[in-house]
Amino acid sequence: RLPPRSAAVMSQITPSYWAAINEDIEDHLRRVIPVKDPVAVYEPLGHFIFSAPRNSAPALCIAACELVGGHRDQAMAAATAIQLIYAATCTHEYPPLTARGKRASVVDRVYGSNVQLMTGDGITPMGFEILAESCDWSERGSERVRRVMVEVARAMGTEGWIGGQFRGLEEEATVEEVIEKTEGGLHACGGACGAIMGGGNEEEIEKMRKYGKLVGIVKGLTQIVFGGKENERKREKIEELKVLAFKELEGFNGEMVPQIYGFLDFVRL
Amino acid sequence: RLPPRSAAVMSQITPSYWAAINEDIEDHLRRVIPVKDPVAVYEPLGHFIFSAPRNSAPALCIAACELVGGHRDQAMAAATAIQLIYAATCTHEYPPLTARGKRASVVDRVYGSNVQLMTGDGITPMGFEILAESCDWSERGSERVRRVMVEVARAMGTEGWIGGQFRGLEEEATVEEVIEKTEGGLHACGGACGAIMGGGNEEEIEKMRKYGKLVGIVKGLTQIVFGGKENERKREKIEELKVLAFKELEGFNGEMVPQIYGFLDFVRL
Repeated sequence: RLPPRSAAVMSQITPSYWAAINEDIEDHLRRVIPVKDPVAVYEPLGHFIFSAPRNSAPALCIAACELVGGHRDQAMAAATAIQLIYAATCTHEYPPLTARGKRASVVDRVYGSNVQLMTGDGITPMGFEILAESCDWSERGSERVRRVMVEVARAMGTEGWIGGQFRGLEEEATVEEVIEKTEGGLHACGGACGAIMGGGNEEEIEKMRKYGKLVGIVKGLTQIVFGGKENERKREKIEELKVLAFKELEGFNGEMVPQIYGFLDFVRL
Repeated sequence: RLPPRSAAVMSQITPSYWAAINEDIEDHLRRVIPVKDPVAVYEPLGHFIFSAPRNSAPALCIAACELVGGHRDQAMAAATAIQLIYAATCTHEYPPLTARGKRASVVDRVYGSNVQLMTGDGITPMGFEILAESCDWSERGSERVRRVMVEVARAMGTEGWIGGQFRGLEEEATVEEVIEKTEGGLHACGGACGAIMGGGNEEEIEKMRKYGKLVGIVKGLTQIVFGGKENERKREKIEELKVLAFKELEGFNGEMVPQIYGFLDFVRL
């Protein structure tokens, strides 16, 4: 039971949708990240924020907001905060956190360890500050932002990304268990936060959370190369997850569905 | 122009006021920090949170709330978040951040570097989560919490504690410049957040911010031992700051003033 043909065809035209979202997030990020004195602080800050890879969870956040009928701007602070949280984890990706992944550092280590450590610690509160300052003073707006803050805090914390990193330190952990908490958790957060900011109802928020989690796991699995048979099992797993993800889109505005389903092309399967 | 005698006399009875605040904060901290599975995550989390020294900024937060007529409970989440933020910075106090201070690690390093790094990263979002979840759904309550989140984020970030640590890396930095951003900034945050949560007006909030900054610098200076003449200059500076701090208490409820001024005894001058 794969997505109907129309969705598959439509998804071929969606990269520009996602590319446009990414451009908007990038613009916003460059606008809100301070370039100022002292250079000793704000130069490494900019360096680590902008040399961190762009995660796809922020883009999903924007798309989820639009899917539930919201305007892109409503979710921009949440998307920015999610990217910053991710950049903070990248900045602290030394010392190598797990022997399993053997990943090289994803950020340029042009500064000393002290500066890298402190900068990571400085990026996280910046994410929360941007969120807290984003809302208007009306009751409704601030309530949404409050919920998003809880979502973002959890996606980063011991139940989320950090929890996944902890899991990765354990001998018996599977790659999937780690990914579920890291990329799965961050994309679940992106989906839920977008739906919250766009004014989605509780059902829509939970559907976007599940969709995010599934496509986040797909994305994470895609980036890992397994050996031989294990790789085949991975491809099967990915197909299963894609079907489940597509199901979560049922009941949403038909026109927007192919665009958000296009997420899976966007992250380059 | 030292504080009038009555204040000096009264301040002798205040340690129990501060001790009671500290007990309440401790109780609250123990209630909100999860003790659960997986042990690999939550055991080090508890370890680093509770082995970090108790900072006095959270207590000041509670006292400022009461000074402006609020109830202790209103500021408890803010106080807890401030202590957590501080605990996070203590947890990341390795590698030694500055050659100047030559401070030993303030937390027991019973876990490996990876766990210590990840745990610190997990404590920070927990502080923001506790804050975001603390408010009721009324417009007013959530607006106060939103402001407090911005305050806490700044006190931790590149304009606050982290900014101070950066400054500490620079050759030409004076101890005072560092303290102003670290302990000064954290106590300014404590004072302002307490006044915000207690329903203080803008003038009261700014006075508590200034009071907090001054007494935070006093506290920080007190903890540093200078050599000979430098030490005498320190004592003079402290006396100056105390007079300025006392001035900020003008206009507040007379009965409460000696108690909050007692902060300076509380931190053991």
